[in-house]
Amino acid sequence: MTALQQHDGLVVDGLQINNWDRGLLEQLRTGGIDAVNATCAVWEGPEETLRAVGAWCQLAAQNPDLVVLADGVDEIRRARETGRVAVLLGFQNTSPFGDDYRMVEVFRRLGVQIAQLTYNIQNLVGGACYDPDDSGLTRFGRHVVSEMNRVGMMIDLSHVGNRTCRDGIDASAVPVSITHSNPTWFFDTPRNKPAEVICALADRGGVIGCCLYPNVLGGEHTTREQFCTMIARLVDEIGPDHVAVGSDCTQNWSESFVAWLRNGRWQPPEANPTPPTWPAWPQWFTGPADFPVLADGLDQAGLDEKTVRGVLGENWMRLFAEVLVPEVPR
Amino acid sequence: MTALQQHDGLVVDGLQINNWDRGLLEQLRTGGIDAVNATCAVWEGPEETLRAVGAWCQLAAQNPDLVVLADGVDEIRRARETGRVAVLLGFQNTSPFGDDYRMVEVFRRLGVQIAQLTYNIQNLVGGACYDPDDSGLTRFGRHVVSEMNRVGMMIDLSHVGNRTCRDGIDASAVPVSITHSNPTWFFDTPRNKPAEVICALADRGGVIGCCLYPNVLGGEHTTREQFCTMIARLVDEIGPDHVAVGSDCTQNWSESFVAWLRNGRWQPPEANPTPPTWPAWPQWFTGPADFPVLADGLDQAGLDEKTVRGVLGENWMRLFAEVLVPEVPR
Repeated sequence: MTALQQHDGLVVDGLQINNWDRGLLEQLRTGGIDAVNATCAVWEGPEETLRAVGAWCQLAAQNPDLVVLADGVDEIRRARETGRVAVLLGFQNTSPFGDDYRMVEVFRRLGVQIAQLTYNIQNLVGGACYDPDDSGLTRFGRHVVSEMNRVGMMIDLSHVGNRTCRDGIDASAVPVSITHSNPTWFFDTPRNKPAEVICALADRGGVIGCCLYPNVLGGEHTTREQFCTMIARLVDEIGPDHVAVGSDCTQNWSESFVAWLRNGRWQPPEANPTPPTWPAWPQWFTGPADFPVLADGLDQAGLDEKTVRGVLGENWMRLFAEVLVPEVPR
Repeated sequence: MTALQQHDGLVVDGLQINNWDRGLLEQLRTGGIDAVNATCAVWEGPEETLRAVGAWCQLAAQNPDLVVLADGVDEIRRARETGRVAVLLGFQNTSPFGDDYRMVEVFRRLGVQIAQLTYNIQNLVGGACYDPDDSGLTRFGRHVVSEMNRVGMMIDLSHVGNRTCRDGIDASAVPVSITHSNPTWFFDTPRNKPAEVICALADRGGVIGCCLYPNVLGGEHTTREQFCTMIARLVDEIGPDHVAVGSDCTQNWSESFVAWLRNGRWQPPEANPTPPTWPAWPQWFTGPADFPVLADGLDQAGLDEKTVRGVLGENWMRLFAEVLVPEVPR
């Protein structure tokens, strides 16, 4: 019996962006994952995203023994009770909302639980981590945040610019998330977050999901001990309730998908000085099925059982319980 | 015979955003206007804009005696020779391109001659005049500018933020336009342009269209003499080749359209502290048919005949001849 199975909390992965099929859903069960934020839009606009949600509905209908598209914590718990994985549909961009704040409620009604404000480049909502200048949250962005609060959709700041992160934390009436980033003190890249952003997030009750994607982890040679020690230090810095995991697993894709993530439709492939390729993952964590090794690693990093439970899922559940709740219609 | 008819140059209006019908096309002829940049997208995305272009094709097909959808200066001159008005399809936003730089060429092939980089609020391309912060031209914005240069689509900076204006002027390989704004020294509003932007535009060979829309003119009581004296001073400051007119006529709309312009889909109507209404126009200029009064006014402001010809159309024609020219395919 692994440490993961022993600790008896719900196991939640803050983000995966796989090319989903039955095999992957089985990997989640192998990994003991009870719920996952599954990205269903990155650059897609409203209509394209409707089709992506439709594809998820179909996959769930075809695999009712394995998966439930869950809305809120009660449905996540019910999924676990029936031995199924709860998938929380999520966006890594606000592009599915187009220029229309009303699309927030439309997609929430379709089951979308989480949306990241920007993905890599500036959009109508705010600035992003890979653009040189960050204008902060725009006026439209404030309407989007306010609608997300109202309809109970969790705000994610992972690929968001630091100034827009600060604005988003301040503008939101409820705590927000960074589903899949690490501190820059662990590995310095625009995709990771400086201490001031992480502290502001935690001060307001938010959660950061520490991330195993090699490009934000520091490469394939980063050890499990280094990763788990980072989590332990972060627990010391911001408290045990605000640290979690967002693996950013990217299973089952060809190379063309990483080019889509990097270039979208906004730059010609030839403008990208480094042709996109998938990075190699550390041998100790290559996909969702390896989730149990984290429990062992966190134990070895000296975290107590309650903290390990929080990091592996209960902290996400506490945040979900607080934010995935629609307000009474205004 | 009016001064307009005497001067014998082509008369070009830098921008109108009317709800077009046959009556309006007749008004253009009454006003002696040979060519106009006619807005066919403000907030619309790619598909909506295709429909707007389709509607223009239909209107042109139904009024072949009055109007030609013109591509470049040769077709504008040919329209005049056949007694018809040349309509240059134009965008007041880059929203029709979505997030896809390739849409620039698609819309250029459909006849779109001019596009403004942003409309009032930040988008994927850059910052806008009514947002508090302007991040400058984004990396996507640079690809859009470069594509517009390549396919021969004129860049318009009228509703663009000042920093993005400067970036756009610098990034473009060819001169750019401000189709419908005034200097802030004439009337200080975010929609008008500070001297440094206007000078940079003119230094690179661009043209500014002075604007009669009451909210950028200083209200309905601004006189023709004040407007024409402003143009004369601008001619002194930046030279006779860089000043033109962009009336911003807004004929034939109900009040709901001004609400669409102001709020788009990005803010709830109740968030706008001033419910949008159409402003009253000066009695001396209420629509396209009043264009001839400008010729008389410019004469009275002391401009010589050649300069009047430049301001009323030939400066736009010179710029169009330079920029509405697709490069050889790369």
